[in-house]
Amino acid sequence: MDRLHQPLQLLPADEVAVRVAKITAAMPDGVDMLLVNDNVNLFYLTGRVFLGYVLIERDGAIRYFLRRPSVLTGEEVTEIRRPADMLGHVSFEGKTVGLMEDETPYSSLSRLADALGIVNYVNGSGCLRSARAVKTPLEIRLMKECGMRQTEVYRRIPHLYREGMTDIELQVEIERALRLAGCLGQFRCSGSEMEIFMGNVITGENADAPSPYDFAMGGAGLHPSLPVGADGSIICPGKPVMVDMNGNFNGYMTDMTRTFIAGEPSAEIERANSLSRDICAAIADAAVPGAECKALYALADEMVREAGMEPSFMGHTFHAGFVGHGLGITINEPPVLAPRSRDVLQAGNTIALEPKFVIPHVGAVGVENTYVVRPEGSAERITLAPEELVQL
Amino acid sequence: MDRLHQPLQLLPADEVAVRVAKITAAMPDGVDMLLVNDNVNLFYLTGRVFLGYVLIERDGAIRYFLRRPSVLTGEEVTEIRRPADMLGHVSFEGKTVGLMEDETPYSSLSRLADALGIVNYVNGSGCLRSARAVKTPLEIRLMKECGMRQTEVYRRIPHLYREGMTDIELQVEIERALRLAGCLGQFRCSGSEMEIFMGNVITGENADAPSPYDFAMGGAGLHPSLPVGADGSIICPGKPVMVDMNGNFNGYMTDMTRTFIAGEPSAEIERANSLSRDICAAIADAAVPGAECKALYALADEMVREAGMEPSFMGHTFHAGFVGHGLGITINEPPVLAPRSRDVLQAGNTIALEPKFVIPHVGAVGVENTYVVRPEGSAERITLAPEELVQL
Repeated sequence: MDRLHQPLQLLPADEVAVRVAKITAAMPDGVDMLLVNDNVNLFYLTGRVFLGYVLIERDGAIRYFLRRPSVLTGEEVTEIRRPADMLGHVSFEGKTVGLMEDETPYSSLSRLADALGIVNYVNGSGCLRSARAVKTPLEIRLMKECGMRQTEVYRRIPHLYREGMTDIELQVEIERALRLAGCLGQFRCSGSEMEIFMGNVITGENADAPSPYDFAMGGAGLHPSLPVGADGSIICPGKPVMVDMNGNFNGYMTDMTRTFIAGEPSAEIERANSLSRDICAAIADAAVPGAECKALYALADEMVREAGMEPSFMGHTFHAGFVGHGLGITINEPPVLAPRSRDVLQAGNTIALEPKFVIPHVGAVGVENTYVVRPEGSAERITLAPEELVQL
Repeated sequence: MDRLHQPLQLLPADEVAVRVAKITAAMPDGVDMLLVNDNVNLFYLTGRVFLGYVLIERDGAIRYFLRRPSVLTGEEVTEIRRPADMLGHVSFEGKTVGLMEDETPYSSLSRLADALGIVNYVNGSGCLRSARAVKTPLEIRLMKECGMRQTEVYRRIPHLYREGMTDIELQVEIERALRLAGCLGQFRCSGSEMEIFMGNVITGENADAPSPYDFAMGGAGLHPSLPVGADGSIICPGKPVMVDMNGNFNGYMTDMTRTFIAGEPSAEIERANSLSRDICAAIADAAVPGAECKALYALADEMVREAGMEPSFMGHTFHAGFVGHGLGITINEPPVLAPRSRDVLQAGNTIALEPKFVIPHVGAVGVENTYVVRPEGSAERITLAPEELVQL
């Protein structure tokens, strides 16, 4: 394999330059440099995960410190054994350093600062997060690739279903189809709380089981150590099956949900799925640069109220407090489309819209799509599986 | 499903009492209480994951603060909306509080301390970690169950193989078999660095690809965003296939590796697998309470030297610096069997022994087993698949 033992700069230099420019533009006054150590941000800056550090100075100078493996070469790359070995190459004295406080455990970050003699440090995570929220053309291409590959697998889901299956049995067949199609499996979340395996397949009343996380529909899960998703319910005719599975094919993720059903859907289910599609389309139309995310949430809310569907919108027993979220290397990034969000859309944002409904004693219904906010015109949908209810 | 909407104390009260007694025994002088917030330790203390906090006082008093869902009931349980709501029920003033500094991001932990007015805090993670390292009889039963269920799936691996398969194709069939057998999939690691999906299947030269982590054999992985494990290599006759896949069936994990081969194994491969088995058996014999982990590592080292196998022990291009590790809710816990380990075995420790070899241009060979350290006699193996090379 050509991936073996091949030291290289995986991202083109001009791509790195664009990303670094966005990061330094987001650096607050008084911050001299950023020191990056977490997998998500190392991947963003280099195109691969390794054990080590990337240092970004305010003027855009970038240096790489590799502990292992030896995957990068070049003048800016130094191999080190311990963090303190950086001190031969860079001085932190008198500097204010942005550290990855949102991604790094308290003790690891404190030890790192101690080892490097960094006395003044601030939270630098936001600089990376805001840069990552506006995708480059290369990142958008990667996400479109995910959307296409995920769509191919979603189209095959009816063929994976057999009568009498449980939710988890169907989920496992979807997992297998995704993995054989190249899905990497890893479901990266921002923050340390949320744990998801490869996504969720939820049918019937399980949609109403409360989750520890801010999900529209949680699902009880198979075990209290991972209380989310499929719970072993048999898929019954007339009960919707909501499929929301992993779209990570290249380190980026797309998020797509479709609702499947064995037997005939009731008018209520048809209506909920149609409203979900209409809300997606309306928000996508309004999702232009400069749009306020709280206004986009309000648009959804208004359509739901007009249809009298508030009691089941984004959950029934428990209501999730948003209708959409940014995504990229992780599934939960800015911007967030929520009632009190201060986020304003920018061209290059990638957002998932998921206006979903939980109909009591019936189940979860709705679609979710991933969109790219474009410089002009409506947002572009990049998860292109048909949005109609799909017959199993 | 009976898991829905069912508030209950999932762990028996006497089990909780035993665990809490171990935790308070590990509290350093001067620490008044521990505040637990991370999924692994919440699961340890309650038998389920939720969003909230558990407070343990030095005298063993325990209180539960639930944000969601409402899964626990009882006098000691309080439902809260925000962390600050705890202040109506407990005062941290003048107290020294152990916080979960190894598990919680720097910014989350700082915000939590601020919200609760906790000025004096120390790292309380070690108290939980050392308690968790000594399993209770209930935990040992759960881990034995994992070992049995994992073994059942491993026995079926030859039937999953088809000629011409790649490593990842075989891995996906093993993933499916594990999942259909009830494996939860989630592969919990301590620390924020290590990312693994559902384990690794490695064949041929890919065993020699360096990894960011301290693994005997890394594998290049399918993509630089997850640079570990199978890389798409075709499984060739005469080249070993090392299978090291997820044993999480109930929130606990067992760790088991077996080596498979299509065609006839060479004498060199046979010899390496035999030596791996012999080292496991020798360490298991010596793994009694009071044994020094560095002495157990030295025992392995001596057997490897006698056999002249140092160049391929625990890797070829890169050598991992250990031969075994504790495990339980996460895959990497104390004790560690490494040259400079200060750990001393205790009855109730559960350890994985993995003396593995990478033969250049051939591949990875060896076994890995999970053991329980018993009050008397040798450690008990709980991953019971046959240890011989398995014909594909």
